[in-house]
Amino acid sequence: MIEDKNPQRTSLAQLGEFGLIEHLTRSIEIKQPSTLTGVGDDAAVLDFKDKKVVVSTDLLVEGVHFDLSYMPLKHLGYKAVVVNISDICAMNARPTQITVSIAVSNRFPLEALEELYEGIKLAAKIYNVDIVGGDTTSSQKGMILSITALGEANADELVYRNGAGATDLLVVTGDVGSAYMGLQVLEREKQVFQVNPNNQPDLDAYTYLIERQLKPEARNDVKGILEALEVKPTAMIDVSDGLSSEIIHICKQSGVGCNLYEEKIPVDPQLISVTEEFNIDNTTVAINGGEDYELLFTIKMEDFDKIKHNPNFTIIGYMTQESEGIHLITRANTKIPLKARGWNAMSEE
Amino acid sequence: MIEDKNPQRTSLAQLGEFGLIEHLTRSIEIKQPSTLTGVGDDAAVLDFKDKKVVVSTDLLVEGVHFDLSYMPLKHLGYKAVVVNISDICAMNARPTQITVSIAVSNRFPLEALEELYEGIKLAAKIYNVDIVGGDTTSSQKGMILSITALGEANADELVYRNGAGATDLLVVTGDVGSAYMGLQVLEREKQVFQVNPNNQPDLDAYTYLIERQLKPEARNDVKGILEALEVKPTAMIDVSDGLSSEIIHICKQSGVGCNLYEEKIPVDPQLISVTEEFNIDNTTVAINGGEDYELLFTIKMEDFDKIKHNPNFTIIGYMTQESEGIHLITRANTKIPLKARGWNAMSEE
Repeated sequence: MIEDKNPQRTSLAQLGEFGLIEHLTRSIEIKQPSTLTGVGDDAAVLDFKDKKVVVSTDLLVEGVHFDLSYMPLKHLGYKAVVVNISDICAMNARPTQITVSIAVSNRFPLEALEELYEGIKLAAKIYNVDIVGGDTTSSQKGMILSITALGEANADELVYRNGAGATDLLVVTGDVGSAYMGLQVLEREKQVFQVNPNNQPDLDAYTYLIERQLKPEARNDVKGILEALEVKPTAMIDVSDGLSSEIIHICKQSGVGCNLYEEKIPVDPQLISVTEEFNIDNTTVAINGGEDYELLFTIKMEDFDKIKHNPNFTIIGYMTQESEGIHLITRANTKIPLKARGWNAMSEE
Repeated sequence: MIEDKNPQRTSLAQLGEFGLIEHLTRSIEIKQPSTLTGVGDDAAVLDFKDKKVVVSTDLLVEGVHFDLSYMPLKHLGYKAVVVNISDICAMNARPTQITVSIAVSNRFPLEALEELYEGIKLAAKIYNVDIVGGDTTSSQKGMILSITALGEANADELVYRNGAGATDLLVVTGDVGSAYMGLQVLEREKQVFQVNPNNQPDLDAYTYLIERQLKPEARNDVKGILEALEVKPTAMIDVSDGLSSEIIHICKQSGVGCNLYEEKIPVDPQLISVTEEFNIDNTTVAINGGEDYELLFTIKMEDFDKIKHNPNFTIIGYMTQESEGIHLITRANTKIPLKARGWNAMSEE
C-alpha cells in the first residue's frame, strides 16, 4: 500500500554498528537544561536538580504492535516516541529525554532507518525532548523499537494511579475509540490490496480515524491546562490499552469503584459512521479500543465547575465505594460490569 | 546442550500481558533511597536530589547477542543486567535503577521467563539496583531484551571518554580476551553436540573462560578502590567491544594518540593455553575479543605510584600526542597501527 519512496538502498553492514549510530545521531541537538551530555559516551549525564524524575519504557515489535505494510516508517518513529511521552504526561510530569534502541533485520536498508529516525527526531522536536542515548543492532526478524522516556516534575505536581477518592469525578481528554477503528480500516484496505494491488483506496471518509492510528499525539498540553484551571487530578493514567482497562487500573490501585456513563463517552462523528459501516457497536469500540493516548483522570467533586465547560475535557462518570464495583451505565440505564477487553499483545500470538 | 529442567510449560497467552507482568514483578523490592515508586504506574518516580543522573541502554537480540543453546536463561538475565551496569560504572557513577523490557515468541513458556527473571533479580540484588519498570510483550521470533540503567554521581566524580591527556597512563582492570575465548569454546561444543547429542563435554579446562562469557561481572568495585587510592581517572570506558576498539574511542574523543604494549596486556593463563589449543594468537584475542566488561581508563602520570602495585589494575600503555597515532608495540618491539576489529553486531547478519 505504501509506495517505496527510497529506491536507493545502502546495506547496514557497509556502515557497521558504530558508523550507523554515528550517521543516525549526527544531527541530534541537546536543548533541555537537564541534559548535560547526550549520545557519545557510555551513558548520558542529566541533572534534574531538585525535581523528581519519572522514567517509563516501551517495547514495540513489528507484527505485534505495528504493520509496516500500512505504517510508514516516519510515522512509526513518531508514534514510538509519542507512546512513551504519553506515559510521562500521565504522571503529570514534563517529558525531557528519551533513549532510542532499534533492532532491524537485514531486509532494511540504511534509507529505511533514516526515515524512521526522521519521525523520531520530529517527535523529539515537537515534544521538546532530547535524544540522549540508544543502541542500534540487527535482529533475526523484523524491526523492534525500545524507547525509554524520562521526565521531571515537582513532587507536588505528580499524579499517580492510586489517588482516586470514592466520590471523585472521572474525566477523559479528547475522544476515544478512533485509533482502534483507524486500524480496522487499514486492515480492511490491506486485505483489499492483497486481492487487487491496482486498487486505489479512497480513504477520505476515514482520515481522522487513520490519523489517530498512524500519527497519534501525546497530551502534553493537559498539565498546563489543568494548572491554569487550578485543578490537580487525584489519579491519572493514559489511555493506551482501552478506556475500560484504564478505568479498572485506577479503580484497583485506588481501592474504589466506578460508574461510567455510556452516553457521556466522547466519540468522534467519524467513529459513529464507520462503526455503522463495519456493523460494530461504537461504545464497544470506544471503551475497548486502545492507542488513544488521551489522559483519563479523576478530580475532586468540588472541581466540577472549573472544568465542566472546558472543550478539552469530558466528565464520563464518577467513582464509588469499592464494594459497589465497576460498571457501565448504558443509555437504556442498565448497569453492566465493566471488563478489561483491551488490546492485549500477549494473546495476539 | 542445556537440559530442559522445566518440564512444566505454562503458555503466556493463558496469563495475558497484565497477568504476566504482575507475576514476574510481584516480588520486586525497592531498596535505593532515590527510588520513590517503582513498577505499577505509568512511570517510576525517582529523586536524585543534588546528584547527577546517568542513563544508558542496551538491546540484546537472540541469535545476534546470545545463543540459548548454551546460554542458560538465568545467566542471560544476569548478563543483560551486568552489561548495562557496566556502562554506568564506566562513568564512575553508582548504578541505582534499571528498567527491563522483554519480547518473546510463543515458543517460550512462562517457566522460561521466570528463569530469565530469576537471573535479572539476582543481578539487581547483587549490584543493589532497583527494577523500576519495563514492558513484556510477544515477538515474531526469538527473545529480545532491552534494559535501561540509571545511576547517580556527584558532578566531580563523573569520568567521560574525552578527558585523556597526551601523557596519561593507560590502565585496565582484570584481564581481557577470556569472554571471547569462552564463546569460541561454547561454539565448538555446540558443533560437537549437533553431530553427537550423546557426547558429554568435558569443560573443566575451560571453566574460567566459560564463566567470563556466561556470567560476566561489572566492575562496580573500581569506583571505591580508586577513591581509596585517591586517584581520579581522566577518561574511562568499559571493555564491551574489545580493548582496541575502546582505546580508539578514548583516543578519538580525547584527541590523543596511544602506545599499547603487547607484553603488558593482562591475560589469564587459561586463555593462553586455550588459544594455543585453538591455534589463535592470544594477543589478537585479548585486544579484539569483546564482552570483558572490565574498565579501561587513563590516569595522570603522577598517579603512577598510587596504582603500580595494585592487583586490580595493569598499566598497559600511555597516551601520546594525537599526531603520533594509535599503536600496538609488540613483544618484538614493532609498532603496528591499532585497528578496531571489535565485535560488531551489524556485520554478523
